[in-house]
Amino acid sequence: MNTSAAETWDSLWLNVHLATMQRGQGYGEIHDAAIAVKDGVIAWLGPRSELPQAYTAKVQHDGKVCWLTPGLVDCHTHIVYAGNRSDEFEARLNGVAYEEIARKGGGILSTVRATRNASEEELMLASLPRINNLLREGVTTLEIKSGYGLDLQTEAKMLRVARQIGRDFPLRVKTTFLGAHALPAEYAGRADDYLGLVCEQMLPALLADGLVDAVDAFCEKIGFSAAQTEKVFQAAQRHGIPVKLHAEQLSDQGGAALTARYQGLSADHLEYLSEQGIAAMAASGTVAVLLPGAYYFLRETKLPPIAGLRAAGVPIAISTDCNPGTSPMTSLLLAMNMACTMFRLTPLEALTGATRHAAQALGLQDQIGSLEIGKRADFALWAIDRPGDLAYAIGGNPCQTAVFGGQPRYV
Amino acid sequence: MNTSAAETWDSLWLNVHLATMQRGQGYGEIHDAAIAVKDGVIAWLGPRSELPQAYTAKVQHDGKVCWLTPGLVDCHTHIVYAGNRSDEFEARLNGVAYEEIARKGGGILSTVRATRNASEEELMLASLPRINNLLREGVTTLEIKSGYGLDLQTEAKMLRVARQIGRDFPLRVKTTFLGAHALPAEYAGRADDYLGLVCEQMLPALLADGLVDAVDAFCEKIGFSAAQTEKVFQAAQRHGIPVKLHAEQLSDQGGAALTARYQGLSADHLEYLSEQGIAAMAASGTVAVLLPGAYYFLRETKLPPIAGLRAAGVPIAISTDCNPGTSPMTSLLLAMNMACTMFRLTPLEALTGATRHAAQALGLQDQIGSLEIGKRADFALWAIDRPGDLAYAIGGNPCQTAVFGGQPRYV
Ligand SMILES: [Zn+2]
Ligand SMILES: [Zn+2]
Repeated sequence: MNTSAAETWDSLWLNVHLATMQRGQGYGEIHDAAIAVKDGVIAWLGPRSELPQAYTAKVQHDGKVCWLTPGLVDCHTHIVYAGNRSDEFEARLNGVAYEEIARKGGGILSTVRATRNASEEELMLASLPRINNLLREGVTTLEIKSGYGLDLQTEAKMLRVARQIGRDFPLRVKTTFLGAHALPAEYAGRADDYLGLVCEQMLPALLADGLVDAVDAFCEKIGFSAAQTEKVFQAAQRHGIPVKLHAEQLSDQGGAALTARYQGLSADHLEYLSEQGIAAMAASGTVAVLLPGAYYFLRETKLPPIAGLRAAGVPIAISTDCNPGTSPMTSLLLAMNMACTMFRLTPLEALTGATRHAAQALGLQDQIGSLEIGKRADFALWAIDRPGDLAYAIGGNPCQTAVFGGQPRYV
Repeated sequence: MNTSAAETWDSLWLNVHLATMQRGQGYGEIHDAAIAVKDGVIAWLGPRSELPQAYTAKVQHDGKVCWLTPGLVDCHTHIVYAGNRSDEFEARLNGVAYEEIARKGGGILSTVRATRNASEEELMLASLPRINNLLREGVTTLEIKSGYGLDLQTEAKMLRVARQIGRDFPLRVKTTFLGAHALPAEYAGRADDYLGLVCEQMLPALLADGLVDAVDAFCEKIGFSAAQTEKVFQAAQRHGIPVKLHAEQLSDQGGAALTARYQGLSADHLEYLSEQGIAAMAASGTVAVLLPGAYYFLRETKLPPIAGLRAAGVPIAISTDCNPGTSPMTSLLLAMNMACTMFRLTPLEALTGATRHAAQALGLQDQIGSLEIGKRADFALWAIDRPGDLAYAIGGNPCQTAVFGGQPRYV
């Protein structure tokens, strides 16, 4: 914070209402506000009437009566992949059995095949429309998982594309290595051998190339067991890399409690989360990332234990889970609406879940997720009447512009 | 159709794949196709390789390998209204009872109040973001209902705004008079008196001003009875105006069968539709308009009888039902996905439901809804791999441009 008598700012946003999303303040609404940026971080914010007597701003922006919130954070995506599985969706709705689709090479392994066969450029091109949908909705931070390579070369390729997206777009990207996403065909019946490869070869090599911010796994009957998952966590721990987990999506495997034991950033999905899992997450400060798009697309009927999470004070985040098999969703606003409509979150919880708590799920709570002096100047500006509108509307997009590190993204 | 030896067209689209959506042809896929326009209607279409030897086109458009479908038709909306009910949504999720909200003036009557108080300009401005969402998604025909006025002056104002939208935007608008939407507060306990006003005064006056293309009512325990609805239908019949109905949404009132007896264009919602209702609709050719947004938003669990409708050959259309109380949805693509995900329609049924069958629900089946020689040149162009992608994706928008009466809508 610049504490000199005369404030000198790089830019100043006026004619906006703020929803600061600071902890414990609800939306943190400030009507007719101003927010100032210096060196890419927030230097001042408050009611316009309380602007310092003496300030200079190199640029002044007219916010046109928009609501200005923290840029949205999509904290769980598989957005980088090749191929298209709409044909499976269509086949199943036409009555073709899942086994028949799998026999013909469908399912996740078809995405693995297409992703392995794609060049880095093709992978980027295939991902662009999805990235652009999120950008248009005010997303300024995006987590991207690997996990459709299941071999070192392709996992590295996916993560390089993720890093490239962070360089090419006004977007902060956090990468997550999800080698333990599924068992590749060539390791059928040899899951432990594959996990040895993941832990002993892939992870060190990818870390050496600076491609991994966190490590994730799919802990499920149809994925990896808790014991197998723990091997992955131990490898991550040896390298000092934080973990997160696809946990309790289809059954209770004790994955959330395991994640908590490793001080994991987040446990994600959680429809089948137990009381003990909740207690463990609360004790470790692990974020519950809810993925209503997958719940919706899979026609799940078991709700995640919202009341228990609330009572225990577990931070709840919301994400798209963008992926071709179980959540072909590229709208975080829609995920927020689904969290309210289907999970009965409040609009405040939904917006907190797509900003401050989502930042926490990425370990970025000190840098982004709320409007506070010293945090990055990542904003989204919305043509809405009140912050609750963001979770209420279905399929609209009131985002007028976004600001990344103090730089307006669109003009 | 121009049958002269040398075809002369106003414009020609090349480098596109067509989904003609003609009856009985599935998607009617034509790869590497061409489609020609003269005087705003389709003059030729087919594989590019079969283009006539001699043709001239004043303009040639490069479709950039897009899929070209009929422009989408949103056949059931309440998109013109003032006010904002996100506060109710938020209050209910925070535990406030519906009765409490109603006591404080919430619910549909709050929209009536706001709409009555809005000027024509304000009403247009409030509706614009919603209209723009639909335009961006390739909608070229839009039905707009009145029903938030419940007095002659405001019903007329709503319908004038609807007509104005049809003039101001590259969009075909069909208006529906829904005076029998709810009982206005000033007629509490005097429903029959109000319906007298609707039938004897409002309808003739609105017709005289050329504001009514069809007549609709809300036939439900919390709306109007079947006997009351029939009075409205009789009035419409006297004036030779087609009818449609909000039918069987919350209970079976026999509304669909009543609509069929009046050769209604469509019966809409239909979660509680009976076997007899299906049979009556099949006999009269009445379209079943499904509204998955309302089903979703109200957390309804009773599915409309899809198998029965299919078996009886009732045409199924899909619409947003865009309205502030039960479906604040402005994405027809999302309604298509919901129809597949929740109602188990196939992607082909969903796209047919947003094109050819939606056109039929508006009595426009001879003019729009499929790509056929002689129909209006209303197109949507999509950056997709195959037509099934449109219903598969959740919250994306692959629309690259739309064409209205042969005129490209965006450049
Ligand atoms: Zn996932
Ligand atoms: Zn309706």
